[in-house]
Amino acid sequence: MTEDQQAEAFRTEHDSMGDVQVPRDAKWRAQTQRAVENFPISGQRLEPSHIEALARIKAAAAVVNARLGVVDGEIAEAIRSAAEEVAEGRWNDEFPVDVFQTGSGTSSNMNANEVIATLATERLGREVHPNDHVNASQSSNDVFPSSLHIAATAAVTGVLIPALEHLAAAMERKAAEFEQVVKAGRTHLMDATPVTLGQEFGGYATQIRYGVERLYAALPRLAELPLGGTAVGTGINTPPGFSAAVIAEVAAATGLPLTEARNHFEAQGARDALVETSGMLRTIAVSLTKISNDLRWMASGPRTGLAEINLPDLQPGSSIMPGKVNPVVPEAVLMVAAQVMGNDAAVAVAGAAGNFELNVMLPVMARNLLESIRLLGSASRLLADRTIDGITANTARAREYAESSPSVVTPLNRYIGYEEAAKVAKKALAERRTIREVVLESGYVERGLLTLEQLDEALDVLRMTRP
Amino acid sequence: MTEDQQAEAFRTEHDSMGDVQVPRDAKWRAQTQRAVENFPISGQRLEPSHIEALARIKAAAAVVNARLGVVDGEIAEAIRSAAEEVAEGRWNDEFPVDVFQTGSGTSSNMNANEVIATLATERLGREVHPNDHVNASQSSNDVFPSSLHIAATAAVTGVLIPALEHLAAAMERKAAEFEQVVKAGRTHLMDATPVTLGQEFGGYATQIRYGVERLYAALPRLAELPLGGTAVGTGINTPPGFSAAVIAEVAAATGLPLTEARNHFEAQGARDALVETSGMLRTIAVSLTKISNDLRWMASGPRTGLAEINLPDLQPGSSIMPGKVNPVVPEAVLMVAAQVMGNDAAVAVAGAAGNFELNVMLPVMARNLLESIRLLGSASRLLADRTIDGITANTARAREYAESSPSVVTPLNRYIGYEEAAKVAKKALAERRTIREVVLESGYVERGLLTLEQLDEALDVLRMTRP
Amino acid sequence: MTEDQQAEAFRTEHDSMGDVQVPRDAKWRAQTQRAVENFPISGQRLEPSHIEALARIKAAAAVVNARLGVVDGEIAEAIRSAAEEVAEGRWNDEFPVDVFQTGSGTSSNMNANEVIATLATERLGREVHPNDHVNASQSSNDVFPSSLHIAATAAVTGVLIPALEHLAAAMERKAAEFEQVVKAGRTHLMDATPVTLGQEFGGYATQIRYGVERLYAALPRLAELPLGGTAVGTGINTPPGFSAAVIAEVAAATGLPLTEARNHFEAQGARDALVETSGMLRTIAVSLTKISNDLRWMASGPRTGLAEINLPDLQPGSSIMPGKVNPVVPEAVLMVAAQVMGNDAAVAVAGAAGNFELNVMLPVMARNLLESIRLLGSASRLLADRTIDGITANTARAREYAESSPSVVTPLNRYIGYEEAAKVAKKALAERRTIREVVLESGYVERGLLTLEQLDEALDVLRMTRP
Amino acid sequence: MTEDQQAEAFRTEHDSMGDVQVPRDAKWRAQTQRAVENFPISGQRLEPSHIEALARIKAAAAVVNARLGVVDGEIAEAIRSAAEEVAEGRWNDEFPVDVFQTGSGTSSNMNANEVIATLATERLGREVHPNDHVNASQSSNDVFPSSLHIAATAAVTGVLIPALEHLAAAMERKAAEFEQVVKAGRTHLMDATPVTLGQEFGGYATQIRYGVERLYAALPRLAELPLGGTAVGTGINTPPGFSAAVIAEVAAATGLPLTEARNHFEAQGARDALVETSGMLRTIAVSLTKISNDLRWMASGPRTGLAEINLPDLQPGSSIMPGKVNPVVPEAVLMVAAQVMGNDAAVAVAGAAGNFELNVMLPVMARNLLESIRLLGSASRLLADRTIDGITANTARAREYAESSPSVVTPLNRYIGYEEAAKVAKKALAERRTIREVVLESGYVERGLLTLEQLDEALDVLRMTRP
Repeated sequence: MTEDQQAEAFRTEHDSMGDVQVPRDAKWRAQTQRAVENFPISGQRLEPSHIEALARIKAAAAVVNARLGVVDGEIAEAIRSAAEEVAEGRWNDEFPVDVFQTGSGTSSNMNANEVIATLATERLGREVHPNDHVNASQSSNDVFPSSLHIAATAAVTGVLIPALEHLAAAMERKAAEFEQVVKAGRTHLMDATPVTLGQEFGGYATQIRYGVERLYAALPRLAELPLGGTAVGTGINTPPGFSAAVIAEVAAATGLPLTEARNHFEAQGARDALVETSGMLRTIAVSLTKISNDLRWMASGPRTGLAEINLPDLQPGSSIMPGKVNPVVPEAVLMVAAQVMGNDAAVAVAGAAGNFELNVMLPVMARNLLESIRLLGSASRLLADRTIDGITANTARAREYAESSPSVVTPLNRYIGYEEAAKVAKKALAERRTIREVVLESGYVERGLLTLEQLDEALDVLRMTRP
Repeated sequence: MTEDQQAEAFRTEHDSMGDVQVPRDAKWRAQTQRAVENFPISGQRLEPSHIEALARIKAAAAVVNARLGVVDGEIAEAIRSAAEEVAEGRWNDEFPVDVFQTGSGTSSNMNANEVIATLATERLGREVHPNDHVNASQSSNDVFPSSLHIAATAAVTGVLIPALEHLAAAMERKAAEFEQVVKAGRTHLMDATPVTLGQEFGGYATQIRYGVERLYAALPRLAELPLGGTAVGTGINTPPGFSAAVIAEVAAATGLPLTEARNHFEAQGARDALVETSGMLRTIAVSLTKISNDLRWMASGPRTGLAEINLPDLQPGSSIMPGKVNPVVPEAVLMVAAQVMGNDAAVAVAGAAGNFELNVMLPVMARNLLESIRLLGSASRLLADRTIDGITANTARAREYAESSPSVVTPLNRYIGYEEAAKVAKKALAERRTIREVVLESGYVERGLLTLEQLDEALDVLRMTRP
Repeated sequence: MTEDQQAEAFRTEHDSMGDVQVPRDAKWRAQTQRAVENFPISGQRLEPSHIEALARIKAAAAVVNARLGVVDGEIAEAIRSAAEEVAEGRWNDEFPVDVFQTGSGTSSNMNANEVIATLATERLGREVHPNDHVNASQSSNDVFPSSLHIAATAAVTGVLIPALEHLAAAMERKAAEFEQVVKAGRTHLMDATPVTLGQEFGGYATQIRYGVERLYAALPRLAELPLGGTAVGTGINTPPGFSAAVIAEVAAATGLPLTEARNHFEAQGARDALVETSGMLRTIAVSLTKISNDLRWMASGPRTGLAEINLPDLQPGSSIMPGKVNPVVPEAVLMVAAQVMGNDAAVAVAGAAGNFELNVMLPVMARNLLESIRLLGSASRLLADRTIDGITANTARAREYAESSPSVVTPLNRYIGYEEAAKVAKKALAERRTIREVVLESGYVERGLLTLEQLDEALDVLRMTRP
Repeated sequence: MTEDQQAEAFRTEHDSMGDVQVPRDAKWRAQTQRAVENFPISGQRLEPSHIEALARIKAAAAVVNARLGVVDGEIAEAIRSAAEEVAEGRWNDEFPVDVFQTGSGTSSNMNANEVIATLATERLGREVHPNDHVNASQSSNDVFPSSLHIAATAAVTGVLIPALEHLAAAMERKAAEFEQVVKAGRTHLMDATPVTLGQEFGGYATQIRYGVERLYAALPRLAELPLGGTAVGTGINTPPGFSAAVIAEVAAATGLPLTEARNHFEAQGARDALVETSGMLRTIAVSLTKISNDLRWMASGPRTGLAEINLPDLQPGSSIMPGKVNPVVPEAVLMVAAQVMGNDAAVAVAGAAGNFELNVMLPVMARNLLESIRLLGSASRLLADRTIDGITANTARAREYAESSPSVVTPLNRYIGYEEAAKVAKKALAERRTIREVVLESGYVERGLLTLEQLDEALDVLRMTRP
């Protein structure tokens, strides 16, 4: 690039460390540019929901700063207006900083301050300063983690919980539909006493509903914001009432149950609530793993597997084996679950790495936590819509399994005792005959241990599912 | 061993698979013995608290089985009495089965059934059967996970929560004691604006108090018992009312807030509540990691470290460096925390491995979850008693740090702006002078940006901790 | 206890911090006693193999210290002799220190020094000093991690590798035995083209053989000892030649390929080789997980599962379902694998927690690494002896599966193309007919796309396994 | 969209399941389009290096298919030419499939087949078929994991190892530069005997060099390709010699040490080599964690920390505290390390989830493994260039620390014994005096235990670093 081209393509900005060349049309300024150059690491940026949360704080802070006389009213209004545009996602391209950056997220906070300052300056026609105006009464150290808690709270309540409820409802519809579909239970993967397919889907739905309970259980701490602690938790340079008012503004704008940290030193020194929430996401991933595996196994076959249910055909399954169709959505869900378990490990490692007044592993916690919430949301909806909704049962085969399981001998324990029942089961299995035949020939009825009626009742597989 | 010696040392027992040689004086019988031989893996047995919980269920089941007419009253009474002795820990040596065994814990359930049957038989003088009497109306598949949830609920509420409260109280005493000890805050490990040592201990106490909140948040699901589902969740072979009555008995005997599973298929197919609880324990481990590291760093030195506080001297620290004393309890706590994080990973892997009607990774979940609770309990008490309680502050050094931190310039932002303040800080640092000196010589006062009084007030470090 | 009883039960010892009451008959002294009192945490002690390794270093050090004139010859001989008894496991009860202790293992090193000093003093009749004689030329900081590397190297080469080779050999015997047992391959759990059961067992054997390769790949770094670095890696207070000579002695005594650290600062500041080795153990656990799951699924049934193979019956499988037999050894192996994955997470967390000249998370790394090696060793032998060796195939059922899989259409791609083949497969499946029938009726032979002979050859399932 | 607009915007494609609407200008076809619609999960696509590897296989396969007479020569040449363009990254936008998709990566394999077929068709002017031509002799089940191993091998050898060597070299330059900079060693964070800053940097360099050794140790298994196994490992539908020839082509084109799987059933049923490699990456992350923490602590201050070294100033550190500069690159490296540990957990979970003839967690393993390699590569270079290279030492302060550490008493053990030395150290500390003073006044010289010369030599701190 010639000097002239350089001059055309860039403009000079400066910050407390000196001059920096910034792309001419960029809305960001010096500190963002330094960060772009300092962190050419992953190519990945903040999640849009995170930028939105950051901007919501800036908008609310402007309103409150004006109210408290900290920032001039016109400037504050220009900041508010610009910040709301950022919150709407219109300026996401102006957030070029890598997610692997300074551990406090200062670079992203300054990115927001600078972009908003530039937009506000353009509208207002006079200089709006990133630090003295946009960041007034704030510090990266309270704003950035607050933005993360807001984004996570929003995503948990607005994305993940609805998706889980959608999935649970789909499962509950199937639980009702399959209420009478009796099949062999399986424990240790071995034939056990009968259950209904509906009972199994009811169990899955409960796992998912409990996932929602788990998220609500963690929410009180996740929705607590460090805002107001500024640099080290003491709230230095923040006027009285600032943080409560800003949180009230953001809560009103977003409808989220946000509260101020009960202890600002815990709230900046530790990020335990994120580790806790991540543990809940991990538990949901564990639930989805179990459910997806059950679905895959029940649908296995069509000829050499269990073939109790059919999943919808979504795409050809093999580039070499013609006609093959695979359980691709449960597989994708399993991979999402593995990712969430991995992300959770990253969150825990980062959460344990704090020192003194600030945990400086914030952006990596943000990346992993917000991604996990988003992935679990997408995967749950997909599982509901593309798999659960379309499942059909192979009712005849399922009943055949139920009746052939040697464990249907279990209700006879009360008539002939556990050890005799074990003999019957083994004999039936060895001779490939039914339990009923072996019981009859073994003379238990003649010996008065049970009547024929009791035998038939005891061997009714559907009845065994509702003792 | 000669045949005679063999005959003296062993007796013959049998189960549904045939005869087994059992040590002559063992209270256990055939199935326990098979398990001893089948699983020579770790040498580690069930936690005593787990055996206790198992026995509590057996005692309660005997009472209820008698009440419902399932088991003869005298037999039931003998079972109850024997089971209570087991619950008291008197027969722990009779539980030789390895913790790495069948994944349902059937071997341990049968171990309990057999030991109790033998003890009851001895007292009663007539045969009490492990399956038909002791295990009546039950299955390993509901009893064993129930015993695990009971043991975990008991340990969480009876061991860990009190230990955490003990620790938090110790920290709160220090927070009060160190209320006026001003020191440099540190973010990114770099000098920041002042805090008090009391504020830091207050933050730690909050982390620990939140740990208690986290445990209570998970408790509703942890305290849910699969009991009553028997083999596959349907409750086959269980009389109506059995499980509710047994749970009520156990709850009364233990004082624990136990409830019956809302969905018995979830309750046996999944072990999500253990994964969730383990995630909470992991979060507590993360808290302890942060706190222990802060303590170690603040006590580092005595000459080449931060040396803000002193930990009690507990033992010589080096086999080669005379006079060295190390922060051994925080180190032990850090190792406990690492162990809990590892145990948590094992619990999650196991929790995700369930299929159909039963998760068969139960004993490994038991081992890790119960150990984590126990270790966190011991470590929390130890940290309180042997470290926190004895901490003293190096008040003078701490204040010296506070005053020397260039970040004390921060309150001047409001008078001279962020960029001027940055210049002052850099100059003070470069010339190894105080902020006050540089401000004075830079003419801000002369220019009327602030008065001398405002300057002194702004640079009062203790005041900076309570803006 | 009265004062007299106290006096009888205890004796007074002292160390550089003062007097300590020690149980009268204990071989340990003051520092061990302090550690017993300081760390009432887990109740778990060092692994015996770890005590052995520690004692081997003490014995070798005595020999070399005498040779170099650092310790008097008679004293050195008494130390050597005592240390060898400790190495043989005769004094394990004299090692009461909890595994959760000071992070350098100093307490355990001093425990060894004190017990050996006491034993040597008793024999020699004159005072042998724990620090000045037994620990001469050493520091906990180089001795303790060295003992851990020695114990791990010994266990990897002496316990785990032979166990894995034993397991691989068992699998290879089955691979040969099942060479002709054709069955349906399964990908995505869905019917695929045929394989032989022998090919599957051959794959498992390769996984295990690669596990051995992995251990050997990590060994060069695991077998490197920090010995000679003493306090901080510089080797202060160690005579020239000491460490090389001690390592040679230990290598000769144990037959292990031990070497001296190439860089003593890496060797004490980091414990990366343990993290690496743990990652290899984790990989072996992953292999065993896959294999155990395959075995469980292939043996599932007997009536409602895949039932391709039979595992040996080891014990009754259910306390309620008579006659049920479960895959208990694969389950135990799966639990061991989950434990190893958890232990591995603990090792990684601990490995990342070092600072400056010493990682002080050593005992927790020792516990987890040595346990993982031991558990994988036991589990591998058990899997070989109690499960693999006794597996039989249900040959007829396996072939039936192979022939019924719609994927046997795959070899027809070359004659009729992928899309026509897909149509054939779908039609066969929908009409529950064989591929052969559908091909014949569809006129491909008439149209000259393939001959009858080619068709029969193409559809020969065993042939498909060796294209 | 009106019907006409729809018709303009899309074209109709079909596959074995029927018709699909595909964007008019897309190079992809029906199966890719199905996948786009089936997996709206993460928005993340395959890594470019992964697409490249996939395309390299397609190019090589075309060449070999032509040579073996399986595919017409002109068609093969068109495929080769198109595949090479894809390998160059020119068509990355034509790979829209989400990374969370079918677990075999079939959708991405078909995406490659379709794009290459379209490009080849365009050039050739006659139809090139995605399955029958581009995918000839291949299956997703061998091609997709092969592409992952190739991409990982390329990134390990071409990106990560050079970056680590670059970092190690930077550290080694600093080790030489700081050879004489004596400072206090620290163990347990407490004052210990002296080391040089150069020795510390030498230790770091060794950690990184060992990281390279670790990667080479895993490479033999990582560089093994499943290619040739096709659907289930048997190599069905592949002509003899195909896989060896293709691997040779790819090896020649890339310069990578690729080999054919020694056992094709292991090679498709398991993905253990990826788990192993990920464990090595995790170990490197652990090394970087330790090093970054040491750097941060040594640079802590400037006034209230250790302040032994200075890191280059890269950007303003605080939005509120003027003049603050933080160790931002080490922080970013720590976050990368946490991410790699998380990614590693995801890889292990996925690696353990295989069944029978195929592990179907491939894309999630790809995402995590390839990202980890890339992140570690960027982070290592950044650490070298933006931090290590610019580090300066505070030599005077470092020496002051060395001399003030009470552990400098250690060399006196040999003259006055460990316990006397401990008394000296404690006295010096309590009275804030030097070791030398206390020794002199205690009369050891008078009593002839050591001479003044020996004392001075013993207390020479630089000498203590090279005993």
